[in-house]
Amino acid sequence: MKHYLSVNDIDSLNDWVNEARELKKEPKKLKSLGEGKTIGLLFFNNSLRTRLSTQKAAMNLGLDVIVMNFGSEGWALEYADGTVMDQGTSEHIKEAAQVISQYCDIVAIRAFAGLTDKKEDEAEIVLNGFKKYASVPVVNMESSVGHPLQALADAITLAEQNTKKRPKVVLSWAPHPKALPHAVANSFVQMMQLQDADFVITHPEGYELNPEVTKDSVIEHDQKKACEDADFIYVKNWSSYNTYGQVLNQDKNWTMTKEKLGNAKFMHCLPVRRNMVVADEVLDSDQSLVIEQANNRTYSAQVVLKKILENN
Amino acid sequence: MKHYLSVNDIDSLNDWVNEARELKKEPKKLKSLGEGKTIGLLFFNNSLRTRLSTQKAAMNLGLDVIVMNFGSEGWALEYADGTVMDQGTSEHIKEAAQVISQYCDIVAIRAFAGLTDKKEDEAEIVLNGFKKYASVPVVNMESSVGHPLQALADAITLAEQNTKKRPKVVLSWAPHPKALPHAVANSFVQMMQLQDADFVITHPEGYELNPEVTKDSVIEHDQKKACEDADFIYVKNWSSYNTYGQVLNQDKNWTMTKEKLGNAKFMHCLPVRRNMVVADEVLDSDQSLVIEQANNRTYSAQVVLKKILENN
Amino acid sequence: MKHYLSVNDIDSLNDWVNEARELKKEPKKLKSLGEGKTIGLLFFNNSLRTRLSTQKAAMNLGLDVIVMNFGSEGWALEYADGTVMDQGTSEHIKEAAQVISQYCDIVAIRAFAGLTDKKEDEAEIVLNGFKKYASVPVVNMESSVGHPLQALADAITLAEQNTKKRPKVVLSWAPHPKALPHAVANSFVQMMQLQDADFVITHPEGYELNPEVTKDSVIEHDQKKACEDADFIYVKNWSSYNTYGQVLNQDKNWTMTKEKLGNAKFMHCLPVRRNMVVADEVLDSDQSLVIEQANNRTYSAQVVLKKILENN
Repeated sequence: MKHYLSVNDIDSLNDWVNEARELKKEPKKLKSLGEGKTIGLLFFNNSLRTRLSTQKAAMNLGLDVIVMNFGSEGWALEYADGTVMDQGTSEHIKEAAQVISQYCDIVAIRAFAGLTDKKEDEAEIVLNGFKKYASVPVVNMESSVGHPLQALADAITLAEQNTKKRPKVVLSWAPHPKALPHAVANSFVQMMQLQDADFVITHPEGYELNPEVTKDSVIEHDQKKACEDADFIYVKNWSSYNTYGQVLNQDKNWTMTKEKLGNAKFMHCLPVRRNMVVADEVLDSDQSLVIEQANNRTYSAQVVLKKILENN
Repeated sequence: MKHYLSVNDIDSLNDWVNEARELKKEPKKLKSLGEGKTIGLLFFNNSLRTRLSTQKAAMNLGLDVIVMNFGSEGWALEYADGTVMDQGTSEHIKEAAQVISQYCDIVAIRAFAGLTDKKEDEAEIVLNGFKKYASVPVVNMESSVGHPLQALADAITLAEQNTKKRPKVVLSWAPHPKALPHAVANSFVQMMQLQDADFVITHPEGYELNPEVTKDSVIEHDQKKACEDADFIYVKNWSSYNTYGQVLNQDKNWTMTKEKLGNAKFMHCLPVRRNMVVADEVLDSDQSLVIEQANNRTYSAQVVLKKILENN
Repeated sequence: MKHYLSVNDIDSLNDWVNEARELKKEPKKLKSLGEGKTIGLLFFNNSLRTRLSTQKAAMNLGLDVIVMNFGSEGWALEYADGTVMDQGTSEHIKEAAQVISQYCDIVAIRAFAGLTDKKEDEAEIVLNGFKKYASVPVVNMESSVGHPLQALADAITLAEQNTKKRPKVVLSWAPHPKALPHAVANSFVQMMQLQDADFVITHPEGYELNPEVTKDSVIEHDQKKACEDADFIYVKNWSSYNTYGQVLNQDKNWTMTKEKLGNAKFMHCLPVRRNMVVADEVLDSDQSLVIEQANNRTYSAQVVLKKILENN
C-alpha cells in the first residue's frame, strides 16, 4: 500500500483491526518508527476528531507533525489542466503537491464534497490531485466520497464489541437540517461489505446511496423492520444522491429512539445533532458507542500510518 | 487539585509562587514529567501571551501540545440540555468534551465573556461544560469571569518585586474605547485577598465589580487618594458590571500617569492601549513591570501543569 | 549576524550556499544545536512554502516551533509612537515584540507590502518594529521590500545547477491579474549583485524596480533580446513601483514560453499562475527548477537558523 485513499486500500481488514487493537494497548511502542519523518495534515474543511486523533496517532509513532488550514492559511488551488490562471486561483495542484512533498514524508488531506456538482465531487479533485502529483504517500482524512479512517475506527469498535459469529448491523439514515455529504455512509458500507455480518441499509425513498457503492447490500425502506433484532445500529444523515445534494426529507420519525434501538448498540461518527439524528436517551445510555468510536480514531490512524511507514 | 479553574484552586499561594520561581531558574528540569502525555489548548477567542506562554510551559514539561482554534477550525457547540439541535450548533458539549478527553491528558480552554447576558456569562457555560463532561483535568486560560493563570503570574511578579512586609497594592480602573470583561480584575482581586497587603480598589462610580468577588476589599472612588504611597498599582479597564457590559465612562482623567504613579511599580496584564489606559511615560519607564508579568505567564502555567501532572 | 532581515545580512554568500548544501546532504546532523530553544513563526499573511519549509528547517535543528497567524489569532498591532490608542489597534509593537521575546529564542515574521502607501511599505514597520523592540534575533519570512530566504534558496539552486564560470541570468517580469509586491524581485536582484554573473533585468517600461535596489544592474526592455543565450531565466510579476502598486500592463506577450526560454533553466519562487506568468510547456518541462527551488527553501532557512543559533 502506498496511499490510504479508500477502504479498498485495506488488504486484510481483520489483520489491520487486530494490529490497531495491539497499538491501543501500548500506543507508544512504535515511537521510533516515524522518528525523523514529518507528516503534513492539510485541512480544506473544519475538523475536530480527525484533527486531534491524527495528530495524536502521528505523535505516538514519533512523527513530526505540521498542521495547515489550507483554505485560510495557504493559496487557492487550481485543479484543471491547461487553464489560463487569470482568475481567483493562485497556485496549481501540480506545484502545490510536488512542493509539499519536499517537506513532508506523508501528506494527509481533508476536502469535503461541495454537494453542488456530482461529477466534480465524484472526481475527488483535491484528493486525486494530491495522489497524482505528490511524490509521497497520501492519506484521506475525509474526501468527497469517502471517510476511510472513520470506517476503520468503526471496524475496530465493532470487533471490540461484537460477541456473535454473524452480528446484525444496520446503517440507518436520520434527519438533519443541513445537506450532508455521503462520505461516512459510503465508507461504512464498503467496510461492512468486507465483514461477515447480516448488513441492512435503511433510509426513506429518494435517499439511495450510489449503487456502485451499495452493490448488493440489502436495502429496507421500513426503518423499524430494518432495526428489528439488530446488534449494532449505525445512524447517519446524508443528503440525496439522486437529487444531488438536496434535503428531501426532515421527518423526525426517522430519529433514532430507544424503542427502535432495542438491545442494539448505537453508533455514530460524530458530530451528532441531538434529538434530530438521535434522542438524548440513546446517546446518554450505556448502549452508545460513540465515544469509543472517537477513541478508536487514534488507532485507526495509527495503524494506517504504521503501514505507510513500513512500506515506503 | 484536579482542575485549575479559578484562583480558589490554589491550595497555598505562597508555595505555588515559590515553586514557580524555582522553575523559572531551571525551566526544563522537569522535562520528563509530561513525557508521553498531550495537552490540548482550545481557543474560542484570540490570544497572544496565553497562546505562546502556555505552549512554552507545556513544552518545558515535555508535554506534546495540540493547539486548536475551536471557533474557526471545529464545530459550533451546543451547551443546553435537551435541545432539538436543528439550528446553528453542530455538536453538543457532552460529546465534544468526552471526545477530546480521548486524545488529550489535559485540556486548557479560553472562552471570553460575551458581555451581553450576565447570567450566561456567570454560568461559565464553556468552561463548566468541559469541567462537567471531560474526563481529564481542565485549565482555565481565561473564562467569562476569571483569568487565574494571569493572577498567578501577577502573584509571582509581586513576590519577586516586593520588599515590604505589607505592601500597598492598588487596582485602578482606567478608560478604554471598548467594553471589556471582568475576568482579569476578578482574579486579581481574589488573588490579593490571599495576600498580606494593604489592598485598595479604585474606579468611577458605576464600575463596581461583582460584590461576591470584592467582598470586604476596600473601594475608594478618588483615584489620586487611592494611589497615594502605593507600592504597586495594577491598572485595568473593565466594563460596568451593574449596567452589564456597558461603557459608562471614558474619562481620561483616569489614565495612569507618572504623577499618579509616584514611586509605585506599574502593572498591567497586556494588551494595553497606550495613552488611554496608561501614559507612554509610565510604560516606557523602569517602574513598569508589564514585560516581567508576561514572562511570568510561562512559570504560572508551568506550576499549574506540574501540579496537575503530579496529582492525576 | 544577529538578525536575518535582508540579503545584506549574508556575510559570505558562497560560504552560506556551501553550508546549506552540506546540510541538505544530512539535514538532521545538527539536531542538537537548537535543543531546548523555541522559534516563533508569526504570519501576518498567507504562506505555504515559507510556513512548511521554515518549520521543517527548525525541526531539523531540534528547535521547538510555535506557529501563530498573527492577524486572525492575536491582536491588531499599533506601530506609531505616541498614539492615543482609542481606535482599532489593541496592542503596541513595543509590548508585543518584548513579550514574544520572553517565550521565543528566535522570531520569524511574514508581513507583506500593502501596496497602497509606498512610504509605509518602505519603512517596513512590522519587521523593523520587531527588530527594534524584540530582544531576540528576527528572521524575515518576506517583508514589504524583501524575501531574503527565497533569494538564498535561489542562490543555492543556481549553485547546484550552474556549470559555467559566468552564467547569464535574466530576471524577467511577467503579466499577472493582481498587483503583487516587489519583495521577491528586490531580493533576487540584491543576491545577483553578490554573484559573478552576466545579469540582466527585463520588464515593460513603467515597471522599473526601486533604483536603489537595481543600482547599476543592466535593464533591457526587449524581453526576447534579454533572454537570448540565457542560462537561467527567473520570471516574476511585480506591480509598478513608480505608479505605486498599480497594474499597468497585462500583456501576454510577456508570458514566458519555451521559445523565449531557449536552452535556459526556468526559475520562479511560486506560487505561479500557469499560462499567465509562464506557459504549461515550460513548467512541465525538465528545464523548470521550481520544485528544487522550493526544496531549497528548507536549507536556506536551516543555514540562516544555524548561523543565528551559533552566533547568539
